[in-house]
Amino acid sequence: MRLSRAFLPTLKETPAEAQIASHRLMLRAGMVRQTSAGIYAWLPAGLRVLQKVGQIVREEQDRAGAQEILMPTIQNADLWRQSGRYEDYGEEMLRIKDRNQREMLFGPTNEEMVTDLFKDYAKSYRDLPRNLYHIQWKFRDERRPRFGVMRGREFLMKDAYSFDVNPEAAQHSYRQMFLAYLRTFARMGLKAIPMRADTGPIGGNLSHEFIILAETGESQVFVSQDLLDLDPLADTPDFAGDLAPHVDRWTQHYAATEEMHDEAAWSALAEGKRVSARGIEVGHIFYFGTKYSASMGLTVQGADGKPITPEMGSYGIGVSRLVGAIIEASHDEAGIIWPDAVAPFAAAILNLKAGDATCDALCEQLYAALGAEAVYDDRDARPGQKFAEADLCGYPWQAIIGPRGAANGRVELKRRATGERLDLSREDAIARIKRA
Amino acid sequence: MRLSRAFLPTLKETPAEAQIASHRLMLRAGMVRQTSAGIYAWLPAGLRVLQKVGQIVREEQDRAGAQEILMPTIQNADLWRQSGRYEDYGEEMLRIKDRNQREMLFGPTNEEMVTDLFKDYAKSYRDLPRNLYHIQWKFRDERRPRFGVMRGREFLMKDAYSFDVNPEAAQHSYRQMFLAYLRTFARMGLKAIPMRADTGPIGGNLSHEFIILAETGESQVFVSQDLLDLDPLADTPDFAGDLAPHVDRWTQHYAATEEMHDEAAWSALAEGKRVSARGIEVGHIFYFGTKYSASMGLTVQGADGKPITPEMGSYGIGVSRLVGAIIEASHDEAGIIWPDAVAPFAAAILNLKAGDATCDALCEQLYAALGAEAVYDDRDARPGQKFAEADLCGYPWQAIIGPRGAANGRVELKRRATGERLDLSREDAIARIKRA
Repeated sequence: MRLSRAFLPTLKETPAEAQIASHRLMLRAGMVRQTSAGIYAWLPAGLRVLQKVGQIVREEQDRAGAQEILMPTIQNADLWRQSGRYEDYGEEMLRIKDRNQREMLFGPTNEEMVTDLFKDYAKSYRDLPRNLYHIQWKFRDERRPRFGVMRGREFLMKDAYSFDVNPEAAQHSYRQMFLAYLRTFARMGLKAIPMRADTGPIGGNLSHEFIILAETGESQVFVSQDLLDLDPLADTPDFAGDLAPHVDRWTQHYAATEEMHDEAAWSALAEGKRVSARGIEVGHIFYFGTKYSASMGLTVQGADGKPITPEMGSYGIGVSRLVGAIIEASHDEAGIIWPDAVAPFAAAILNLKAGDATCDALCEQLYAALGAEAVYDDRDARPGQKFAEADLCGYPWQAIIGPRGAANGRVELKRRATGERLDLSREDAIARIKRA
Repeated sequence: MRLSRAFLPTLKETPAEAQIASHRLMLRAGMVRQTSAGIYAWLPAGLRVLQKVGQIVREEQDRAGAQEILMPTIQNADLWRQSGRYEDYGEEMLRIKDRNQREMLFGPTNEEMVTDLFKDYAKSYRDLPRNLYHIQWKFRDERRPRFGVMRGREFLMKDAYSFDVNPEAAQHSYRQMFLAYLRTFARMGLKAIPMRADTGPIGGNLSHEFIILAETGESQVFVSQDLLDLDPLADTPDFAGDLAPHVDRWTQHYAATEEMHDEAAWSALAEGKRVSARGIEVGHIFYFGTKYSASMGLTVQGADGKPITPEMGSYGIGVSRLVGAIIEASHDEAGIIWPDAVAPFAAAILNLKAGDATCDALCEQLYAALGAEAVYDDRDARPGQKFAEADLCGYPWQAIIGPRGAANGRVELKRRATGERLDLSREDAIARIKRA
């Protein structure tokens, strides 16, 4: 994208309403604009991050055997009366009447709808297991929307729902999602820690939150250093095989939110292993048995001809929230520091003397080679402004092209995360950016 | 996808509520399920088509110079009061009150919101031109939702909005979209005909509908055979250059809906050139000048320091509607006939004797080679059922593998559109499917 023609409205000043780093930086870097309280429009740079985050989520859901569907945003109130949650949900549910005065709602989650859909389809135990997910906009009418996309009212969530023939099979589905989540967050450059959690209003008896560490985190967490040292990408499990040993590697170490913290177990850890830090929740998985299948009347015929009520779980990732969470975990005074996998653009090409034929030519060559993954700062602006905005927007690489270097065909490559600078030929610079 | 584990609920019987071919076939092929009147969930096969259609739309918008953003579904009523459309829109607008009794609505279109967003950004004539588009779910509370996704209440639309410094520049933006639309529909295997249209409630003075021909079309259209003979993909225009000659090639021939039909001009055509047929609207473009920029208070500073009110246009494609429209244009008695570019899967692998080691092995080899673009019918079912379902679901190729052929390493490849059958080696079959 050429900055002279881009829709990338960066701000010099920090908007007064932004209290946390990600909110401030997303506004300043022109990623989002608020259109109503807790409701945001995603501008080109922000949308590219959102799409990359969503695509990583999708790939890891598919790898774990889940199948993508897309349920609508507007649901019938009657569905929620069947599960008994229509009244329970309270004012966070955006209730709507259509032109015929039918009671509808903007879905905050989809347990009821997916169970109803699946009921239409599944007749036999042979139709199990299935895990269906979708990535769709949800609405929760927060009393105090704040922190930008971290606690918005309209937000993008990936929610998956598993259907199994018995609790053991359901446990396998749960483990598939547990491991898929670890891979998902790791691919985004995040260290996410699974922590036992209360199941809350979704119900059920097994639940983990996935929490990333960030100084600005919303809650206190307690975690063993041994857990932090594990790498989810070190090996890819066979998702059809026995996953218990893989999950046990993670659950054997101490990790707890303040809510679930056990002071005695914590004290038993060697002091050098105790890490107490702030965390941000980015995912949550639940096994809740037959809570929805039973209330919504979902049964299938078992191998013995008798009816079975499928065991279910649900698995959520806050996709739009993740964009903010990544920034909370990765920024400095100058701006955002994007992990390569989710950066809106891999590189900014900074033309320090736009209009100079040599600089222009070298920049155009780089831009042509990098294609859609580059933003080209071709504006007639001061170098200082270009540096500051590239730092603010957090592109992993800055290809800096001034008259002296350009005369020798050299590109100065700056790595945003480390400040490291390389003096490279055009070809080497392109190769280095593409390799990341 | 292995059919034994897929969520692809095909139906033998035609649901009573489905009046038109696309609605019948989308339900029978397990692409969608209605969750409320005019509101649909997209199941895996349907979603894959929706995503491919959306991606083609996206690529052609990008090619023409538009930039993708994503505006929220929920809007403030106040925005619509500024343009004066809040009352005008009538009962089709889904009006909502949030927990604080603020008046909101589920956006049926985005002229107001995008103008307001752009106002925040654009200060100078140098910030023009810009064309911003998004692909987002909309809601129109149709009095009589019907015809499946062709006239649903919640639907996916691509809407683009251009901002220009004067009418000539706006005309250029209009032409960019005109030509992008022709390419978009042609890539989906559709013959779309641009027709002069009334501007209706959006206002303005220049508008074209894009209409595809289908026997089951909703309206009568009149078009010159010379127009039908043009190929939008024959050459790629330079979207930054002069587009008038490209557009003129299309507008010089007669084409009109019943509404705009001119009997005298029609009669002047040679009889062999007159094509009268049924059509379905799949896109609509508008140039409406300063209607929204003026009412919403959008001005930028001109080169002479004086304020300019930007000239605008808007450009819509019904993305979810297109899925139905493609089926209306391409099906037969047995089911859907997908154009290659938008098929949910390129090929179905039909194992005629699941459990036979030779058949299984050959099928697995094909499946491994074709990857996510193949659906593998590995079920223990009769060949007749497998043929019928593959025809119904309309995959462009069927790789038919029975014991006799498998013993010789041969694959029978059937082309869904023509019925043509090829007897090929495994390698040639894979290459043929991938080439399409």
